Amino acid sequence: METFKEYGYSGPVYPVNPKYEGEEIQGLNVYGSISSLPDDTPIDLAIIAVPAKVTPQIIEELGQKGVLFAHIFSSGYSELGKEGKQLERQLLEKATENHIRILGPNCMGIYNPKGRIGFSHRLSLVSGPVAFISQSGGNANRHAYAGIASGYNFSKIVSLGNQIDLDILDFLHYFRSDPDTKIITMYVENLKKGGNDFVKLLKETTKEKPVIIWKGGKLDAGHSAVRSHTGGLAGNIKLWKSMAQQTGVILVNNFKELIEMIQTVLILKIPKNRNIAILTGGGGPAVELTDECEAYGLEVPRITEEGQNKIREFIPEVNSNLSNPLEFGANGGYSNMIKVMNILGEEPHISNILTTFNPRWYTSEKFNMDDVVKSFVNTISQDSNKNIICLFNSSRARKDSVDLTDEFYVKAREYGLMIYDSARAAAISLFRLWNYGKFLESRN
Amino acid sequence: METFKEYGYSGPVYPVNPKYEGEEIQGLNVYGSISSLPDDTPIDLAIIAVPAKVTPQIIEELGQKGVLFAHIFSSGYSELGKEGKQLERQLLEKATENHIRILGPNCMGIYNPKGRIGFSHRLSLVSGPVAFISQSGGNANRHAYAGIASGYNFSKIVSLGNQIDLDILDFLHYFRSDPDTKIITMYVENLKKGGNDFVKLLKETTKEKPVIIWKGGKLDAGHSAVRSHTGGLAGNIKLWKSMAQQTGVILVNNFKELIEMIQTVLILKIPKNRNIAILTGGGGPAVELTDECEAYGLEVPRITEEGQNKIREFIPEVNSNLSNPLEFGANGGYSNMIKVMNILGEEPHISNILTTFNPRWYTSEKFNMDDVVKSFVNTISQDSNKNIICLFNSSRARKDSVDLTDEFYVKAREYGLMIYDSARAAAISLFRLWNYGKFLESRN
Repeated sequence: METFKEYGYSGPVYPVNPKYEGEEIQGLNVYGSISSLPDDTPIDLAIIAVPAKVTPQIIEELGQKGVLFAHIFSSGYSELGKEGKQLERQLLEKATENHIRILGPNCMGIYNPKGRIGFSHRLSLVSGPVAFISQSGGNANRHAYAGIASGYNFSKIVSLGNQIDLDILDFLHYFRSDPDTKIITMYVENLKKGGNDFVKLLKETTKEKPVIIWKGGKLDAGHSAVRSHTGGLAGNIKLWKSMAQQTGVILVNNFKELIEMIQTVLILKIPKNRNIAILTGGGGPAVELTDECEAYGLEVPRITEEGQNKIREFIPEVNSNLSNPLEFGANGGYSNMIKVMNILGEEPHISNILTTFNPRWYTSEKFNMDDVVKSFVNTISQDSNKNIICLFNSSRARKDSVDLTDEFYVKAREYGLMIYDSARAAAISLFRLWNYGKFLESRN
Repeated sequence: METFKEYGYSGPVYPVNPKYEGEEIQGLNVYGSISSLPDDTPIDLAIIAVPAKVTPQIIEELGQKGVLFAHIFSSGYSELGKEGKQLERQLLEKATENHIRILGPNCMGIYNPKGRIGFSHRLSLVSGPVAFISQSGGNANRHAYAGIASGYNFSKIVSLGNQIDLDILDFLHYFRSDPDTKIITMYVENLKKGGNDFVKLLKETTKEKPVIIWKGGKLDAGHSAVRSHTGGLAGNIKLWKSMAQQTGVILVNNFKELIEMIQTVLILKIPKNRNIAILTGGGGPAVELTDECEAYGLEVPRITEEGQNKIREFIPEVNSNLSNPLEFGANGGYSNMIKVMNILGEEPHISNILTTFNPRWYTSEKFNMDDVVKSFVNTISQDSNKNIICLFNSSRARKDSVDLTDEFYVKAREYGLMIYDSARAAAISLFRLWNYGKFLESRN
């Protein structure tokens, strides 16, 4: 009730509760029954949050009122065992009889910034390119907030719950043709039905929009958690991996990878190859970055002799290494970095340039943050399909630079500079983006 | 020169530079030559930072003065190729003739808080249990600072450089019997010589002190970076893995894992088994934590019926799952968590308890931070070998809670509460600690 007010939902909202009949909630008159609701406007959606055992009865009453969609928030169904399973069957029967489509039960429902509906307080009201289908209310909620912190907005988020009626396929269908959705993302624990249809639909969808799936419940105990969670059996992760390969789905392993992959798809261009140039200060860190990039599928090929010679003009030989990884010892200041990146932008076989960013370049009064970010991005021409990637560890942020760091993040994203917190995160995301590009090419 | 003053080194320090003879640096008289140095006190250590080609000559002069140890900071030797290799041979000849032992060349030297020597500004002057041997000056420096931020101090750090004389084995020998050192850690790219001796010495050392090795340069391009870096060839990572298995060495993959492993060894007890109980709010996050723990070798077994029944007394059935992972829905507040952890502390087959910590528990005025941290730790008896592990993502720290978060970290460590930033980090470190325990047992 509070969120409808908070988000300024434009239609009428009717609270129904026999206990509070005639009283006011959030300035609205409480109705004692569904049958007593006014008939002047058709009701688009019913949100049901009553004890599970009463829900079949409620569905029947909604049917009599001509309501076509119900989101059942209540839990206490198949996720609790046999009796709950029985209750679900009853619920579905009533829904079918009454031509009502059900979202849930046991789910958080819908977040739709354009439609001014949200399942939590203080969500963004800006509509964005990302759709999220989640078989976990907790993850739906987490992602809604994480989007704000990670610089992207949602077209819609839907929490699926037990999927007794509307299921993952229905929403995949919907988001495929939803003009507001540019990227479809999912948290999936199991498929209740329709594995072949799912694969077929994914194949068609990935040609048009990237689909990122986080598969939860990978091993045995995970399965047991999944079973308790949404009352289904989880598929083997190997199966999901081969499915991803067939369909062009980008599979991720956890929440952090999901966020990073979405940012990657939004900010970076699909690279021609998985070659990366690594720019750093010292030899030890250079070896580490190379190790991490290679461990997750990237390649670190030598810079051309021509390119090295150009760099050698202003970087001394001692304590430097210009083949790749490029190490600059004490010569890795801002203006040298920009010069080197300009040269690397011309290297024909390098599609990705990874550089560490010195926070002093935006906290110091010597530099203008806008100029710094722009000059980084401008080292590659915008019509090339090259990427600039920044490594930046924000976890050590000092109190006095928190605001500046936040400002830097916003500017970086605005200008198309992708920031990762580790080489591992960068390599994993970039490899997956390259792999998706390969899939798209193979389908042409 | 500055750091000797900064750290209050107690002996005399003599700057030598013919260009500035008779002038003052840092309030000290500059000598024009080594031969002109006073003879009243024997010289313990010479630090050489002159162009590489002059160093053999300098070593000879030091020999005439009776100096026994030299740290050569200069670079430009075998890491640059053939000519540099030749120079190294010359240098070593001169050192042998003059009975001088050399650290380096191409290295940062020594950080010894007790001895008041350090290679950078603002290092901690508190001596601690961790020794670090680093085949990278950059990583030696990074680690010295990271220790401060990560809550531990060093006995000594040594940067090895090209190891033409004193090498990794010498320092392993030394730290094995150094009473200030409780944990020996290393960053290694390659072994110059003595592979068998290294393995033998490691086997003997790990029985007495944990040895953590970060092997840098794992694949091809890494090798090329290593070659340029310290002028050697890197061994295959597979070889290092089997070496670690034989010797009880704890192998880590990167800098972050190194830090987390050191904290783990310092704060946690070696667990009897790799079983972990996972406490969390919702089903989706529970599945994720389980996935991550299992992916890195931990096991998530069911809680006993007896334990579950005890928890059921105060946690309602709907929206919860008490088998493991344990999900509490909206019932995961502070006092419930403490009650659950007390019950889990009595579960015979659970050696590790992982819980997410709500920052509100220390930022709110309702709670006293000291009490919160203590009550978490006290849920297990201190003479048990059980561990409590906290998941805590500090990267989203708000400006107004940065100080409180810092305070929380300090307190948590003080009371023995280990904090990780991800389930992955926790699982990797905990598995490695358990594995080290298994090695120790097998050696008894």
